Amino acid sequence: MNNRKVKQKLYVVKIGGNVIDSEELSSFLVEFSKLPSPKILIHGGGKKASQLATQLNIPQQIIKGRRITNSQTLEIAIMVYSGLINKTIVAQLQRLSLTCLGLCGVDANLLLANHRPIKEIDYGFVGDIYKVNTSFLSQILNNNITPIIAPLSVDIKGQILNSNADSVAQEIATSMVNFYSVSLIYCFEKNGVLLEVQNDQSVIAELSFSDYNTLKNRHIIQGGMLPKLDNCYSALQKGVKDVYIGNALDLLDILNNNKGTKLFLS
Amino acid sequence: MNNRKVKQKLYVVKIGGNVIDSEELSSFLVEFSKLPSPKILIHGGGKKASQLATQLNIPQQIIKGRRITNSQTLEIAIMVYSGLINKTIVAQLQRLSLTCLGLCGVDANLLLANHRPIKEIDYGFVGDIYKVNTSFLSQILNNNITPIIAPLSVDIKGQILNSNADSVAQEIATSMVNFYSVSLIYCFEKNGVLLEVQNDQSVIAELSFSDYNTLKNRHIIQGGMLPKLDNCYSALQKGVKDVYIGNALDLLDILNNNKGTKLFLS
Repeated sequence: MNNRKVKQKLYVVKIGGNVIDSEELSSFLVEFSKLPSPKILIHGGGKKASQLATQLNIPQQIIKGRRITNSQTLEIAIMVYSGLINKTIVAQLQRLSLTCLGLCGVDANLLLANHRPIKEIDYGFVGDIYKVNTSFLSQILNNNITPIIAPLSVDIKGQILNSNADSVAQEIATSMVNFYSVSLIYCFEKNGVLLEVQNDQSVIAELSFSDYNTLKNRHIIQGGMLPKLDNCYSALQKGVKDVYIGNALDLLDILNNNKGTKLFLS
Repeated sequence: MNNRKVKQKLYVVKIGGNVIDSEELSSFLVEFSKLPSPKILIHGGGKKASQLATQLNIPQQIIKGRRITNSQTLEIAIMVYSGLINKTIVAQLQRLSLTCLGLCGVDANLLLANHRPIKEIDYGFVGDIYKVNTSFLSQILNNNITPIIAPLSVDIKGQILNSNADSVAQEIATSMVNFYSVSLIYCFEKNGVLLEVQNDQSVIAELSFSDYNTLKNRHIIQGGMLPKLDNCYSALQKGVKDVYIGNALDLLDILNNNKGTKLFLS
């Protein structure tokens, strides 16, 4: 007799910033609403925060491609991510009959983070997550409510911090592996991991960790895809069952292995 | 034998906008953190929303003393109320070791409202609440988490609406009377209901409904105090056990009947 309990499936979906700014958001949310529950959505920031900063004459400092979060930029991130984008997504999904709870990492200390130490660059109010409040998340999921999570975190002193949404998705997915069989899906505006960056039809259907390293060393995969893929393989290494990358409009097809890229450790 | 179950106490506290803008907010939050749980905090908007509208050159339309919420003003309300103010209060209270959940009425359809019909004036995206999701609120309270609530609501079509924070506090307090013995406390920058509006020492310690009507007819109580007091007596009529008005810095003293105004039906 095998009495190991079969774990329930949990979908952790991350939706990228470029989709949030586009008209495709509504179509994505329809796809997301059809996904079986329990499920969690983590959303990026989009361009609204930068637009607001420009309108308010708050200069945006970018060092080596990374945005510096000073106190004014942090205020904007809190307003736009945990306010406008978060509640708009919640309202839209509820219109599709999915009961949702808009959260950020501050709520119930959901995402505890270390204020990133100053080394070469002072990134400002940026947090690297070290603990997810899994019992709170589980309570919400057990009540048949879908958490919609904005990428803010909080440090032990109660300082609100800005965190990378890809990393938030990875940390949340891996934190739940003891309780669920977790699938993690990164959705964005591209069709998956591409062999030729300009050719949206050159999707790599399956990508092993060793093939990834080969393609990385040959600079075929580069730029923003690298941290995203590092998050993917990190999730697999920590026990997430399936990890996918693909177009936000193909969410259900991605999970059926018909579209997008599926990642493997070996 | 009397086997009627004694209901647990629940404190519903509303903190006004003027306190949110001041340095007194931190002192108020220390008082609030000392209040026994379960408890709920509803916060007003403060001047930040108007400031942001001015900075963004969004004209604020006021008709007969009431702000009109057009779509741009609504966006600002969502950003400031459910984003900046809400998450800042949550972070500050958690620094005081109180686990909190920042919510607005959109989350889990917490505050269902009717989009206010257009009569003489079109108030824009303003909602009059008709249903509170009490089972969701109770779940949160049962998990020893304190809800911090921004005064936004949502209609049946998923449209986010702006609601009056005093009314939100009253609706939440009255919705919970079947489950709890509810005390409702309106905290603001004044010491209570005043006999002489310019004399902050002229606090009326106890005010019955009939005395209120007398003072109202003699124009001794007027202006913004009238809708606030109407909310208070409405709460008492609907079964809230105790209702108080007083200074945000005196929260615990108000509950001990040492400061502020206590309201009675008769």
